[in-house]
Amino acid sequence: MYTLRSYFRSSASWRVRIALNHKGLAYETVPVHLLKGGGEQHASHHHRLNPMEQLPVLLVDGVPLAQSLAVLEYLEERHPTPALLPTEPVLRARVRQLSEVVNSGIQPLQNLFVMQQLGVQFGVAREAQQAWSRFWIEHGLRALEELVGDTGGRCCVGDAVTFADLCLIPQLYNARRFSVAVDRLPRLLAIESRLVALPAFVLAHPDQQPDAEA
Amino acid sequence: MYTLRSYFRSSASWRVRIALNHKGLAYETVPVHLLKGGGEQHASHHHRLNPMEQLPVLLVDGVPLAQSLAVLEYLEERHPTPALLPTEPVLRARVRQLSEVVNSGIQPLQNLFVMQQLGVQFGVAREAQQAWSRFWIEHGLRALEELVGDTGGRCCVGDAVTFADLCLIPQLYNARRFSVAVDRLPRLLAIESRLVALPAFVLAHPDQQPDAEA
Repeated sequence: MYTLRSYFRSSASWRVRIALNHKGLAYETVPVHLLKGGGEQHASHHHRLNPMEQLPVLLVDGVPLAQSLAVLEYLEERHPTPALLPTEPVLRARVRQLSEVVNSGIQPLQNLFVMQQLGVQFGVAREAQQAWSRFWIEHGLRALEELVGDTGGRCCVGDAVTFADLCLIPQLYNARRFSVAVDRLPRLLAIESRLVALPAFVLAHPDQQPDAEA
Repeated sequence: MYTLRSYFRSSASWRVRIALNHKGLAYETVPVHLLKGGGEQHASHHHRLNPMEQLPVLLVDGVPLAQSLAVLEYLEERHPTPALLPTEPVLRARVRQLSEVVNSGIQPLQNLFVMQQLGVQFGVAREAQQAWSRFWIEHGLRALEELVGDTGGRCCVGDAVTFADLCLIPQLYNARRFSVAVDRLPRLLAIESRLVALPAFVLAHPDQQPDAEA
């Protein structure tokens, strides 16, 4: 029923992998390589499935759904148990707010395509591209650390896993890739230490994917 | 009950203003000037309400909610009629996908803070900053034009106003500010021409806000 077009290191694909695992939903992975040959996400077949030429795409009986948070909401509506959103309206809003801090506040500014464009449009060198990504990750994760001070329990909002946790884990992985000083984010690290032990998170890790590379 | 911290030209605030109007919800506007004195969104009072130092913030009986799509989902859950989401799950996913094309795929890359950082970090001049914003707006709106070819009716998805329309209108306004060739987006322009006649959209326009400037 579900096919996920995914890349092992794509943080947005990773969020959806955790959700599918958490809800016990079987799915087939179709790897799309973001680098090989200029990026398979730009091929016409993938473009037809998602004109933004991004990952993930979840195929639902062949219908392509893109944008990870839209896909998470879809899975939550179709498979409400186990839940990835709380029941109380303000807490649901808070989960979505924290998720968007990552989804719209960090990830769009630090991904590969943006770094490439800094080079293409302004001749920015590799190291300065990485400093750019680091800046936006630090800016967003500092805000998330503060927000979690109000809402956090064992997870980002309370004690149950939500969308916010699915966004946090891949973003912390990227933070380390860009040498962000994550030790300044003690609340997020404490939550991370609990989440990464959960089977849904273990199975969704990049290293566990069929297209994983060393 | 509702107070909206808003700036007349903030596209994310504008989305929420349309939603409040569409649902007939009274609200008080508290203007936050994004430029004056380096930006009032960076003041400590605003930071406490939203550590991302962005707009909008919707205060619900004093509780601050941020990230416009999280706020839209909250309003939809609390005030489901008139609806801003369809009922069918795949169409709901499509509305959210289209909304995220703007919310995470365009707006984060073309806003004032990003343009300023291009100057600060790489010495990019004003004109090249604007070319950067134009690039991302064109990239995203071209994808949206394609997607609307599948789903569009009188509005972005079918014939009723949804979140996607609330995201489209402010983004087209920004497109024109950055001299994007919007005539290459005929489906989006046809939808826009219908939406801008609706009272909820008229009242939410920047020119109609208490903090509007010439």
